Amino acid sequence: MSALAAGQVPVRRRPGRPRHEELEQKVLDAALELIDTEQEITISKLVEYSGVSRAALYRRWPSLTLLISSALNTGRVVPPAICGQGDLRQNIFNALFGHGAEQAVEMYSESRFRQRIRLVMADRELQRAYWQTHVKMRRVPIEDALRAGMDKGILRSDLDVEACFDTLAGTAYYQLVVRGESFRLPETRARLQTAFDTVWRGMVAHSSR
Amino acid sequence: MSALAAGQVPVRRRPGRPRHEELEQKVLDAALELIDTEQEITISKLVEYSGVSRAALYRRWPSLTLLISSALNTGRVVPPAICGQGDLRQNIFNALFGHGAEQAVEMYSESRFRQRIRLVMADRELQRAYWQTHVKMRRVPIEDALRAGMDKGILRSDLDVEACFDTLAGTAYYQLVVRGESFRLPETRARLQTAFDTVWRGMVAHSSR
Repeated sequence: MSALAAGQVPVRRRPGRPRHEELEQKVLDAALELIDTEQEITISKLVEYSGVSRAALYRRWPSLTLLISSALNTGRVVPPAICGQGDLRQNIFNALFGHGAEQAVEMYSESRFRQRIRLVMADRELQRAYWQTHVKMRRVPIEDALRAGMDKGILRSDLDVEACFDTLAGTAYYQLVVRGESFRLPETRARLQTAFDTVWRGMVAHSSR
Repeated sequence: MSALAAGQVPVRRRPGRPRHEELEQKVLDAALELIDTEQEITISKLVEYSGVSRAALYRRWPSLTLLISSALNTGRVVPPAICGQGDLRQNIFNALFGHGAEQAVEMYSESRFRQRIRLVMADRELQRAYWQTHVKMRRVPIEDALRAGMDKGILRSDLDVEACFDTLAGTAYYQLVVRGESFRLPETRARLQTAFDTVWRGMVAHSSR
C-alpha cells in the first residue's frame, strides 16, 4: 500500500523524512490547492499538480473520496487524552472551547473549515468518510473523559455520551454554519460558555450539585 | 418597490393571486432551478429563466444576495406561537423535533438543505443575510416560549435564551452537517431526544425539579 513500493527512482530529500511521507504530502498539497481554488478534484489533476504517479496514488489511497478526506483533515490532530486530575468540567471546557480549541483554530483556518463543509454537503460519501475516519477519532478524548466522569459519580450514570458530545460540538458548529460568526468574537465565546454551563448542569449527577 | 409598478403588460392569471406575487414566484423558481442544477446565479440568468425584467427584479429585491436568500427560504415558514397551555417541555420538544419539525422536513427537502449550507458556506454575506432575514425569525416562537417558562419559574431565571436555542438547534445541525445522518433514522431521533433531555435538565429551575 505504501508509496515506497512504487519502484520510482529515489530523489534527494531532507534526511529523516521517509520518501512515502514526502509523496503523500505532495498529493495532499495538490488536493488542498485544488480545494482552495475551488477546482474539481480528479485523479488526473492530482497527478498533474503533485507529480506523483497514478499508481502510487492508488497504492496509498483506496479511493479518491478517502484521499480528499485526508486532505481536508490536514492540520487537524486528535487532541491528547484529557487529564484525569483537576476539575473535570474545566478540563473538558478547555479541550472543547479553550486553549486546545484555539490551537486547532490556528492550525485550521476558517476558510478551510468552510471549504470542508461545502464539499461534504455536496458529497454524502465524502461526508461519511470524513466522519468515520477523522471526526469520530477526534471526539474520543472528550468522550472518554465524560465516561470517566460518569464512573466517578461526577456525571449522571444514564448519560448518552455521544449525544452529549453532539450537543456541545453542535453549539459550536451552529455559530460557524448558521450564524456565520467567528470563534474570535467575544460574544461568540460568551455564548459558547453559557451554552456549556447549561449542558453541564444537565449532565451533572444530582449528588454532586 | 413592488413588481406591480413594473408597467408590464398584464397576463392572464389565476384569480385571487396578485400579479406581483406571480412575478416574485417566477423569479424564485428560476433561482431554485439554478441552485438545484448547481449553476451560478446571476441577474442575467434569472432574467432569462424567469422572463421577469431586470428592472422588476431590482424593484423587488435590493440585492442579488437578498434574492438568493429568499429563494433558499422557499417552503420554510415561521412556526406558529407555542401554546402557553400544557407541558412546556413537550410543547418545545414538539416544535423543535416533533410534528412541527416533520412538517418542515417534508416542505424542505434534505437536498435543498444541503444546497443552502453549501451556498452560505461559500458566501458569508449570503450567510448573514439568510440568518438575519430568515433563521432569526423562525427562532422567535421557541425563544418566546423559553422566556415564558422563565417568567413562570419553570426554567431558571438566568438562562441565555439565545444560547439555549443554539444548543438545541446545533445538535440537530450536527446530525445533518457533521454526521451526515437523516432525521428519518430512528437512532438520529433517539439521539435528539436524549440530547434535548440533557439540555432541558440544565435549563429547569431547581424548585421545579
